[in-house]
Amino acid sequence: MSEQEAANALAETKIGDAPNDGDNAKDEDVVDPWTVHSASDTGVDYDKLIVRFGSSKIDDALIQRMEAVIKRPVHHLIRRGLFFSQRDMHTVLDHYEKGIPFYLYTGRGPSSEAMHLGHLVPFIVTKWLQDVFDVPLVVQLTDDEKFLWKDLTVDETHRLAYENAKDIIACGFDEDKTFIFSDYDYIGSSPSFYKTMCRIQKLVTFNQVKGIFGFDESTCIGKISFPAIQAAPSFSCAFPQIFNNKPTIPCLIPCAIDQDPYFRMTRDVAPRLGLPKPALLHSKFFPALQGPRSKMSASEPNSSIFLTDTPKQIKTKVNKYAFSGGRDTVEEHRKLGGNCDVDVSYQYLRFFLEDDEKLEKIRQDYTSGELLTGHLKAELIGILQKLIAEHQERRAKVTDEVVQRFMKVRKLKYNY
Amino acid sequence: MSEQEAANALAETKIGDAPNDGDNAKDEDVVDPWTVHSASDTGVDYDKLIVRFGSSKIDDALIQRMEAVIKRPVHHLIRRGLFFSQRDMHTVLDHYEKGIPFYLYTGRGPSSEAMHLGHLVPFIVTKWLQDVFDVPLVVQLTDDEKFLWKDLTVDETHRLAYENAKDIIACGFDEDKTFIFSDYDYIGSSPSFYKTMCRIQKLVTFNQVKGIFGFDESTCIGKISFPAIQAAPSFSCAFPQIFNNKPTIPCLIPCAIDQDPYFRMTRDVAPRLGLPKPALLHSKFFPALQGPRSKMSASEPNSSIFLTDTPKQIKTKVNKYAFSGGRDTVEEHRKLGGNCDVDVSYQYLRFFLEDDEKLEKIRQDYTSGELLTGHLKAELIGILQKLIAEHQERRAKVTDEVVQRFMKVRKLKYNY
Repeated sequence: MSEQEAANALAETKIGDAPNDGDNAKDEDVVDPWTVHSASDTGVDYDKLIVRFGSSKIDDALIQRMEAVIKRPVHHLIRRGLFFSQRDMHTVLDHYEKGIPFYLYTGRGPSSEAMHLGHLVPFIVTKWLQDVFDVPLVVQLTDDEKFLWKDLTVDETHRLAYENAKDIIACGFDEDKTFIFSDYDYIGSSPSFYKTMCRIQKLVTFNQVKGIFGFDESTCIGKISFPAIQAAPSFSCAFPQIFNNKPTIPCLIPCAIDQDPYFRMTRDVAPRLGLPKPALLHSKFFPALQGPRSKMSASEPNSSIFLTDTPKQIKTKVNKYAFSGGRDTVEEHRKLGGNCDVDVSYQYLRFFLEDDEKLEKIRQDYTSGELLTGHLKAELIGILQKLIAEHQERRAKVTDEVVQRFMKVRKLKYNY
Repeated sequence: MSEQEAANALAETKIGDAPNDGDNAKDEDVVDPWTVHSASDTGVDYDKLIVRFGSSKIDDALIQRMEAVIKRPVHHLIRRGLFFSQRDMHTVLDHYEKGIPFYLYTGRGPSSEAMHLGHLVPFIVTKWLQDVFDVPLVVQLTDDEKFLWKDLTVDETHRLAYENAKDIIACGFDEDKTFIFSDYDYIGSSPSFYKTMCRIQKLVTFNQVKGIFGFDESTCIGKISFPAIQAAPSFSCAFPQIFNNKPTIPCLIPCAIDQDPYFRMTRDVAPRLGLPKPALLHSKFFPALQGPRSKMSASEPNSSIFLTDTPKQIKTKVNKYAFSGGRDTVEEHRKLGGNCDVDVSYQYLRFFLEDDEKLEKIRQDYTSGELLTGHLKAELIGILQKLIAEHQERRAKVTDEVVQRFMKVRKLKYNY
């Protein structure tokens, strides 16, 4: 399927998922930047999504090639298929082998102070990629987007961008290699970024954003033109200070799969701008404690583990809310075994327990019925308490001055 | 008629004027920011336009009040009805009487180096208003708009903005009171401007810009969101450096009537932003040499007098192309008299011959048949040769350094 066909298919899916539609609609997952709705207890059907979006699977051949090129194992989030889909990743590896420079771009929409575990996932892999490839990283904080979509003021979303920047910096990014920016601030300080936006906006019609994003005639004009703002950082001409005015340095974007519509659009306009298409690495969604059919939300503290949670909160939430794949009684569980595919503690362990052998042992023993859910929860609680405590420790060291340094418009350590 | 009704009426008119429509359409003038089409040899029916747009006539009572307040005669372009329509001009005078500060905002779309006489008209009255009221002026050069609408590159429209700035400065604006800006540069250097754009873009839907500007689903998203960019300078919060961060300093916009759709939209969103509605002064259109049914165009050098024309070109163009309201033969003319309503030389004299008595004498003598078209043309040629030569002399003194000074983001001489 071409990208355009995939875009059309997505549009059709969204129409199909409208209320009062036929039965087929109920069987389809909905995945776009604002809605992730899974039709099944095991979550979104990611194989179907790859076909619908027209991306490629991260298969064994790609992983083997990556490991050969970078001369080390890939990150466990990639190895375990939690990053599952990609576009042009082989081209990125070609570039790396030939010594052609590229850069990383990811982002966050600052709609709340309360970032949760799931928000960390793209940043964890982004940091790993930065360490492995030694390339510049730009991080877009779309405060303008959150103002347009949410019932928040300009000032509040701007403030949240700076708060969220602290959590992102606490992931361990290298200050010499990383530019974090608020859209308000950077658009308001870079004619090159605004010009790149304009060039994209000239090439995309209302019909196209309607098809890709489901906008309609009552959508505000800010939302309608926003996709160009998320597209712009995919092109190095948006950052002349970093890329020494070279407009065609290629870009790799690690992100959750729901952001792909923006980059399908970006890849569609790139050749018409004479610029390289960005490559992508897509992650699966991090499930809510209650399971993948439930929604994680900052306004529902028990829906996830937040980066601000205390050890006690983490313990209580996991014990009380993490959906169990175990059986109704211990006897039944011992006999029939637990279901890892729906057990949220096991799913979380896949994200955060790094030891492959230990994870596989847990999987086998839980599936056979030897381990009870309580064991998985205890394991997870220990890991998350440590991970969150360490994050909080690093975040406490991120002063306003540190944030200012990361967000200053400047050259990075690279010479292009 | 309310402004919303007027906006709807305009949208209907535009639909009515589409090709293959009924007979009624042919009788309607089309006036929007991209099309001015007059159904009659005498030009647009401005009285009808006032009704359709929902603005108010600049009537004798207003002119008398203006003269009383400013303690001098109004400019002849206002006195002669060449500025004919307004919104909230009485409020502006109220402010002035009470010592409440306000500012002026006008603009230009830099689509060509070749500015013509008609382009000068709003700037002439803007300069007069600046002199009379002693207020700050912001001049927006919409290089982004021209990139979106024309087959021009970003760099070319940006360059044209600086070229056009020289002609605008040559109108005699006071450097201490005037900020001229390119959208690329100023959006790219002012988070406050971009935030103001976002606040407007959140309040305007596709349906609204479709109704006001005639956009459709194949319109690019840049054009769809552009009206917010032309609206933003109507609010003092877009210029914190000039207005000392005061967001509610009122604004008066002198412009040609075809720009009114932007400001109807602006006035619609202003109360929802908690900001004052901009007031307006609207000019009539400056006719092409061939008459008001013909189009002035930079690509048709004989359609108008350009600011770069030589004395010889001016003479040749007026003599050869200025549409005459005279009769077919001298005998007939002496008997029946000329028609000032369609004679382009007379129309141009109304714009540029300052002496009321002399103009009235010409009108009477031409109407009676005493004067031939050649006399009017000779009079006009003399005036335009002087006006253009003086403009060229002033423009030659506008160095790049002078342009940089006018276009620098800075305080003006006022203390707010």
